[in-house]
Amino acid sequence: MAKDKRPERPRAETPRGFRDYFGAEVSERKAMLDTIAAVYYRYGFDPLETSAVETVEALGKYLPDVDRPNAGVFAWADEDEGWLALRYDLTAPLARVAAQYRGDLPTPYRRYAMGPVWRNEKPGPGRFRQFYQCDADTVGAGSVAADAEICAMLADALEETGIPRGDYVVRVNNRKVLNGVMEVAGVLDPADPDRHARERGIVLRAIDKLDRLGEDGVRALLGKGRMDESGDYTEGAGLTAAQAGVVMGFMAAKRATGAETVARLRELAGASAIGNEGVQELESIAELLDAQGYGPDRIVIDPSVVRGLGYYTGPVFEAELTFEILDEKGRPRQFGSVAGGGRYDDLVKRFTGQAVPATGVSIGVDRLLAALRAKGRVQGDTRGPVVVTVMDRDRMADYQAMATELRRAGIRAEVYLGNPKNFGNQLKYADKRNSPVAVIQGGDEAARGVVLLKDLALGARIAAQASHEEWKSQPAQSEVPRAGLVDAVRRLLGSA
Amino acid sequence: MAKDKRPERPRAETPRGFRDYFGAEVSERKAMLDTIAAVYYRYGFDPLETSAVETVEALGKYLPDVDRPNAGVFAWADEDEGWLALRYDLTAPLARVAAQYRGDLPTPYRRYAMGPVWRNEKPGPGRFRQFYQCDADTVGAGSVAADAEICAMLADALEETGIPRGDYVVRVNNRKVLNGVMEVAGVLDPADPDRHARERGIVLRAIDKLDRLGEDGVRALLGKGRMDESGDYTEGAGLTAAQAGVVMGFMAAKRATGAETVARLRELAGASAIGNEGVQELESIAELLDAQGYGPDRIVIDPSVVRGLGYYTGPVFEAELTFEILDEKGRPRQFGSVAGGGRYDDLVKRFTGQAVPATGVSIGVDRLLAALRAKGRVQGDTRGPVVVTVMDRDRMADYQAMATELRRAGIRAEVYLGNPKNFGNQLKYADKRNSPVAVIQGGDEAARGVVLLKDLALGARIAAQASHEEWKSQPAQSEVPRAGLVDAVRRLLGSA
Repeated sequence: MAKDKRPERPRAETPRGFRDYFGAEVSERKAMLDTIAAVYYRYGFDPLETSAVETVEALGKYLPDVDRPNAGVFAWADEDEGWLALRYDLTAPLARVAAQYRGDLPTPYRRYAMGPVWRNEKPGPGRFRQFYQCDADTVGAGSVAADAEICAMLADALEETGIPRGDYVVRVNNRKVLNGVMEVAGVLDPADPDRHARERGIVLRAIDKLDRLGEDGVRALLGKGRMDESGDYTEGAGLTAAQAGVVMGFMAAKRATGAETVARLRELAGASAIGNEGVQELESIAELLDAQGYGPDRIVIDPSVVRGLGYYTGPVFEAELTFEILDEKGRPRQFGSVAGGGRYDDLVKRFTGQAVPATGVSIGVDRLLAALRAKGRVQGDTRGPVVVTVMDRDRMADYQAMATELRRAGIRAEVYLGNPKNFGNQLKYADKRNSPVAVIQGGDEAARGVVLLKDLALGARIAAQASHEEWKSQPAQSEVPRAGLVDAVRRLLGSA
Repeated sequence: MAKDKRPERPRAETPRGFRDYFGAEVSERKAMLDTIAAVYYRYGFDPLETSAVETVEALGKYLPDVDRPNAGVFAWADEDEGWLALRYDLTAPLARVAAQYRGDLPTPYRRYAMGPVWRNEKPGPGRFRQFYQCDADTVGAGSVAADAEICAMLADALEETGIPRGDYVVRVNNRKVLNGVMEVAGVLDPADPDRHARERGIVLRAIDKLDRLGEDGVRALLGKGRMDESGDYTEGAGLTAAQAGVVMGFMAAKRATGAETVARLRELAGASAIGNEGVQELESIAELLDAQGYGPDRIVIDPSVVRGLGYYTGPVFEAELTFEILDEKGRPRQFGSVAGGGRYDDLVKRFTGQAVPATGVSIGVDRLLAALRAKGRVQGDTRGPVVVTVMDRDRMADYQAMATELRRAGIRAEVYLGNPKNFGNQLKYADKRNSPVAVIQGGDEAARGVVLLKDLALGARIAAQASHEEWKSQPAQSEVPRAGLVDAVRRLLGSA
């Protein structure tokens, strides 16, 4: 019967789609967030931190490609507050804040925010349900100067995190131009904007997938629909070949220079009032950026950028890394998008009924960090603490005093707190921590008023290269007076 | 019928119990987290970041005083993963990590973590359902040297955040001593540890409420039970007066010195084997801390500390701020607890079946920050950016260029991006941003190659003090060559 009494143990696992970050992974991300935040701050943006939890109604439903209930969010019924949910981005909470504090905030309100967001998506390899974003938005500025500023700031932020000029490009487009094209193609009627809304949604998502599906895949989605490799069928927008041709022409409208691209867009969408307005805005953005020195080596007009989210109303932007990395199978591939954003003039209006212009950008911090790691451009501090070993359990206070002295001198240090019986385990521990120096004092050393210092970094180099004679002479171990501990350790660290 | 067509608008509100943090509130908390993390790091602790979401079974049920379903956590049913929940502390996720990666982590594993945690409690004034914790824990060290280290580190962390010695005290107790007292009082039978478990739970929570309920309230909870002011009845442990007397005696066992307190505890609980062990551990902790110079001005043995959480098994600690602040009604009160922790040797065992000793502390960052603010000890940078005003909408690129130059020189700066028509609004905006300097260039100034600088900080001081004549002479406004913009602004900021 003993078997029946054995308690059932919980599984020690994160839920699928979630993961843990250890040591340097945490500090490297923090350093990156700090760098980006400093750029945003320098541009006049103020920090804002909203809570992870919002009401479902405040968040709204704007996620693309939702294969889950609750429109892709993690949601639950609260006893007092109705349905609550984890935020899926940092933009929806900003819209709520802009509405809630509209009398108190400066106009325009520039804010930055950083933190995790959650998506209730089907977990898959490399697809996480919690990830970091680092956003900057300007609420209350209708001028495209605000959009241009966001694009310039995005370029600055990428460069300061370690992506050199030439390794990235910020692509800019305008939803209004796309709407103009839709009008020309006959799937947008300015007199009845709700008509064809479903078709336009499919067109939008299809264009957003150009990278992944290629031209034929997109054309299938614009027409009857598309069956993917797994046999799943995605319904198409039902456009005729002629209509689809107009849309495909828009996506291919990029020319050698911004001016030529603008001219081509004017040909395609200039017949529509909204399309013409969009082209005009793109032209202004390009002029403003040019005047500030952000030329096409950094920021380009590219009609293939549309962004999947449903709430954009004007300029949209996307930052793409242009270098190749090796994927998990060793094949070279473009790294792709690490940031995106755009103008969303109607999000605040949802709450207040009054139009409030807004524009902003979101940097996908985890992807950007992965890119920098892939290029070997992250210099994480992986050196562990100095480890004070324990030779004599009864003199723990002496060992603690050594660690305390080292710390007071600004040196990261700790006493070994495992079972001290096996000294080899203590050195193995120091190795595992990547400790640069081990401090050793047995009864003999204590009596003589000295400590032994083991230079573990040097020891590792010697072990890799040295002859047996060199090894035996133990150059990596030295004896110093107890009173000189801090200075001696500092010398070893300096030379490490 | 127009009324019916009006869309229902979402409320622009955080759910009750959640709040937003703006500007300096965010940067001050970040600075505090950075300071505490630096202390933890210096002690050899490594950062760890787990996700906000865990399985309900991994979190376990350890929250005290649960007045909500799901044992005080926010939980929901996931399509793939069963019940998921937001973490309610950083300790339960650590136990899961220690079990999941037990083959890979160093032993002992020292880690720190910071971030929000969530409690599904009834929202009330000043009671938030999301708040920050900043924890440090050592997993795999059974020695009380690990507990002593945590206490010393906690004292260091508090001092580095700005709480001077004398304004806080770290109180230390031991659950084993309490268990010894329970044994003496007849509510713990070492041969049958499950017996009286319910009574012991009530005793524990009653002691934890001594501050709030006073001696009579606790005595009522130890006996038949207690009716609070609202008429809610809390069931008691059902102890006899004699049994309750033993427990009350334990809580009052603190003496003038640590040695005397230890002696008194030995009288009370020494007859129990577990009680004796606990007293011995307290004595060792006090000795280790004394040897490192952490005397009773910083760390004291105090039997009234028990901590509400159910998972502690040995030493427990609590940091209390000892100064008085004024409450919302202007009455002086002790600020109280800002950090707590202890040893929890069974949390990892839940997963693995193997005992893994662990101890740690959690600092309630939001409370600590509130305390520092109440004492006027937070020096937040509330100065806004330099604002470049817009006199001529067509020269936006020129204004952007000025802001860019200032930023390249490391000066926080922005162009006014609201509607530039009304110049007064631009200056009001600069005031609201707490901007130190406004930059002004109309067509006339542009033609002459100059800019006007308005020293807003000086202007505010003059407005408060100056005579009419001084005011008219406009000492707060100066004209400088356009090429000298950066230097001139730097001079103004230096003198501000």
